[in-house]
Amino acid sequence: MSHRERCAAAVLSELIEPGQLELYALVVEHGAAATLDRLLAAAGSVQLSRTAIAKLGRRDAYARGAELIDQAQRCGARLLTPQDAQWPQQLTDLASLSCDDCAAAPPIALWLRGELPLRDVCQRSVSIVGARAATSYGMHATTELAAGLARRGWTVISGAAYGVDGAAHRGALAAEGATVAVLACGVDRAYPAGHARLLQRISETGLVISEWPPASMPLRHRFLIRNRVIAALGRGVVVTEAARRSGSRVTARRAQELGRPVMALPGPVTSAMSVGPHELIRDWQATLVTSAADVIAEVGSLGDVFAEQAESGHADACNDPDSQHARLLKAFPARQAASVEQLAASCRMTPRQVRGILPDLIMRRLIVNHPDGFARTTPS
Amino acid sequence: MSHRERCAAAVLSELIEPGQLELYALVVEHGAAATLDRLLAAAGSVQLSRTAIAKLGRRDAYARGAELIDQAQRCGARLLTPQDAQWPQQLTDLASLSCDDCAAAPPIALWLRGELPLRDVCQRSVSIVGARAATSYGMHATTELAAGLARRGWTVISGAAYGVDGAAHRGALAAEGATVAVLACGVDRAYPAGHARLLQRISETGLVISEWPPASMPLRHRFLIRNRVIAALGRGVVVTEAARRSGSRVTARRAQELGRPVMALPGPVTSAMSVGPHELIRDWQATLVTSAADVIAEVGSLGDVFAEQAESGHADACNDPDSQHARLLKAFPARQAASVEQLAASCRMTPRQVRGILPDLIMRRLIVNHPDGFARTTPS
Repeated sequence: MSHRERCAAAVLSELIEPGQLELYALVVEHGAAATLDRLLAAAGSVQLSRTAIAKLGRRDAYARGAELIDQAQRCGARLLTPQDAQWPQQLTDLASLSCDDCAAAPPIALWLRGELPLRDVCQRSVSIVGARAATSYGMHATTELAAGLARRGWTVISGAAYGVDGAAHRGALAAEGATVAVLACGVDRAYPAGHARLLQRISETGLVISEWPPASMPLRHRFLIRNRVIAALGRGVVVTEAARRSGSRVTARRAQELGRPVMALPGPVTSAMSVGPHELIRDWQATLVTSAADVIAEVGSLGDVFAEQAESGHADACNDPDSQHARLLKAFPARQAASVEQLAASCRMTPRQVRGILPDLIMRRLIVNHPDGFARTTPS
Repeated sequence: MSHRERCAAAVLSELIEPGQLELYALVVEHGAAATLDRLLAAAGSVQLSRTAIAKLGRRDAYARGAELIDQAQRCGARLLTPQDAQWPQQLTDLASLSCDDCAAAPPIALWLRGELPLRDVCQRSVSIVGARAATSYGMHATTELAAGLARRGWTVISGAAYGVDGAAHRGALAAEGATVAVLACGVDRAYPAGHARLLQRISETGLVISEWPPASMPLRHRFLIRNRVIAALGRGVVVTEAARRSGSRVTARRAQELGRPVMALPGPVTSAMSVGPHELIRDWQATLVTSAADVIAEVGSLGDVFAEQAESGHADACNDPDSQHARLLKAFPARQAASVEQLAASCRMTPRQVRGILPDLIMRRLIVNHPDGFARTTPS
């Protein structure tokens, strides 16, 4: 990738809030530099906001991009773009979610602090999310769960917030496992302030990542935008504690829309912080898990899909007519979307088996996740 | 019903352990007296065991039956047979479960202590089962659940054991609701001994019932036989606390086979007594419930089925072609059994909706519950 492209990607990550489908489409089609040129010429419907223009001031946009990359380097951070080998392909799944109104498009750039290769680290990974106001039970159970996953070689992804997020990272660190903190601000910022040392530790043995360049503020709206990355990056999402209506439930829904297994940890029915997980389980939105082994049983059936997909393409399970993949593919109605239950009935599998295979098919671009169910992609 | 028939039913309940399909079939076809006569003549394949013959001694069987009815009366108990108006029809569902090897046939008689009309009391009822070695959390949660059900006019059915059973009865009593204790011994016995006062209280405001005549011992094998009555009598079963492999899980499976909603109450993942409920929920064998409202939402959708079925026969929902009942009936494959998921897919309902309607259809004898799924009954 040319330096010009990298500079363009860097400055775009500063000028425009991530998640916009139109911007993502432009970058995919024309590249970051051509997209930036269009924006600067105020052509097309994606326009730079006044704030963005003010931010750029009189500086040359490419020079600003180069400056950001330099600044990042000085604080031990680096830029990762979809052209890099270590870009996690699973983030592309977000393209199936996004609409014009919601900020759900895949990232166009990530800033990383830490040495680990992001894609490799996320090949066997689980996102753990939950309440900031976690109970001591929730903190204990989350720490144990994260440590158990880490001991089994699974990376723990979370958002570095107080409560459940912190317990998830700490559990993984305690077990000397890899952990990835996805921030809603620059990777050089200590947010929340009380987690400065924790973030430092994560960057030393794991990764602190963000869509926003170093020094960016943790603005309120950024957390929701950030959450989609947590939902897409892991092979599955576990909600350990959450109140009745919480951000964690939104992340869980995103993960579900992406075909990722959603799991929830039960707790005492007397605890307000277990209401969120219990509702998810009761409403069949999440599978109940009580241990790392349970979690791996849910997500492990995917095999090393994230790893395989980039290399092997379709020359695999889908082409073996006796495989579950092939049976499931055949079960799809011609031009209609189908629910997991309908698919399970058609191909004589359990809904759980179907849920285990769907993410794979989605990641292979054979299936898309519509609001009214799953459907085969139309060969273009 | 003739006195002779009642005496025969009474003595049969003493001479033969309940649950045997062949005995049940004989009583249904020929009546209790004719069945007893056959047994005494040692005709047919159902034979009186040596123990039973020894028990009878040289007495006339009918005289012994009359004696049992008298003895029962003296301890405030009475005999109820399937010919009585207050016989709970839902017990007949057990006929669909039973095989030659398992003691799962419907009861042929019940002994009752307490004034309440059994059938009416069980029209809106939920069975609560669980561990004897319940934790304080489990005792608290069970008591609250039972009290909540009782306050909403639902009868709580349980087995009067220590732990969860006791908490269930006590919760219902505390809320001044009806509660039914199903014993594995005579209704005049205080078993367990520490529940003597509890059983007394239940008999004063609710019902203590048993398939065995007064003075019968709580023999070990009788608890498993008894459990099927707990599973069949309520509209649904809730497991509040249970160890990994427990009797409660067997009761839950029985209830599920009967088409009754099975529910489980979550708890801390650190508690061994919540492993049973968590496994049921995780394996999609039970719906997670956290409150009486949750339970009623699960079982309440059945409407007053138990009440309606005896009177209205089929002149109802099943005959309305637009009803969910009719849609579900149409969804059954011709000569095959189907799973809940398959049925749900065929008639475009959720599995939960299907599970809500199936018990009704089973009770109307339109559907039977095979080991490999649900199937239409063949009109005879």
